[in-house]
Amino acid sequence: MRRKDFTGAGEDTGTVLSSAPIGYLGIVDDSGYPRVAPLNFVWHAGKIYFHGAADGEKFSYFAAGPQKAAFSADIPYSSIPSYWISEKYACPATIFFKSVHIKGMGDVVRDAREKASALQKLMEKYQPEGGHAPIAPDDPLYQKPLAETAVFRIDPEFVAVKSKFAQNRPPEVRRDIIARLEVRNEGMDKKTAEEIRKTLET
Amino acid sequence: MRRKDFTGAGEDTGTVLSSAPIGYLGIVDDSGYPRVAPLNFVWHAGKIYFHGAADGEKFSYFAAGPQKAAFSADIPYSSIPSYWISEKYACPATIFFKSVHIKGMGDVVRDAREKASALQKLMEKYQPEGGHAPIAPDDPLYQKPLAETAVFRIDPEFVAVKSKFAQNRPPEVRRDIIARLEVRNEGMDKKTAEEIRKTLET
Repeated sequence: MRRKDFTGAGEDTGTVLSSAPIGYLGIVDDSGYPRVAPLNFVWHAGKIYFHGAADGEKFSYFAAGPQKAAFSADIPYSSIPSYWISEKYACPATIFFKSVHIKGMGDVVRDAREKASALQKLMEKYQPEGGHAPIAPDDPLYQKPLAETAVFRIDPEFVAVKSKFAQNRPPEVRRDIIARLEVRNEGMDKKTAEEIRKTLET
Repeated sequence: MRRKDFTGAGEDTGTVLSSAPIGYLGIVDDSGYPRVAPLNFVWHAGKIYFHGAADGEKFSYFAAGPQKAAFSADIPYSSIPSYWISEKYACPATIFFKSVHIKGMGDVVRDAREKASALQKLMEKYQPEGGHAPIAPDDPLYQKPLAETAVFRIDPEFVAVKSKFAQNRPPEVRRDIIARLEVRNEGMDKKTAEEIRKTLET
């Protein structure tokens, strides 16, 4: 997706980063190979936080000091079968989506307060109903686990939001897709229809 | 996840790569930054195939000849709240998963037959009900679209499968999680219970 009309900014960043359950960390290993690691993560105070073992691979990568990192997260919306758009061609088959792509320096979080706060925010994202003692840096309960857990932060230098909702199709095709989504009405179809409608308003 | 007991092999590779709808390509850009791109893809004949525009970013990266690439795909199973395992500690909160991690050289597919066949396999994965003319290299219908579409292939040199299903917990804890999953019975809970059961048999 390099088309200009698929690249947006601003309001969707938070939507994607707050609701995507899994994010994908990209790093470059010693041999110059990229690596992609699926992660649970939280978007907090304009930064990406995730955790790992204090003697794990991510720790050994970031422990040397800030390292170049990439981070992507996405929300898949609806699958659009080719025959909604063309009788013969397979080409229009697609999946609409929103995605966020971050480039920045990744680092180990050393400050006990920031570390505990990031882990607490992770819990609030994945277990919003609570049911555990709050993670606090001075709670004796968490001394050992906090020492054994590494927390990482990516400071975004570059953020791109991409979305694909038939922006490149004529308005009448978009209206037809909306109508078909409303009839099918599965999974994310209603939300997808809303997003396509937004492209017609601008 | 660097623990040995979380790293498996073999049979799960196909399961994950055939059923995950989105895969994550890792590359290294000119400035030495990693990049992560979500993709629709197909696992065919032991290789990863995906497509893009013939004048797009992925094409300009791979067109220079084989390039180092990473590719990951995963299936998230069930979320496990911390209070299923501990009354106070937040730490046991987790999401069980299976994931596949590939390292290999990525390249542009130039052979018309391989290109058409990869696109046809993509259609069979995402639109198994058919409803389009089969993509064939010699069908005049597809001459233009085939010329405008780039197809890419990753030849895996290294494949790792990871799975997390409470393997590191004592059997009685695993049995308790199974019982709770069966009561909750949401989303993937039944399949998660089956996977935990497998860890008890070995």
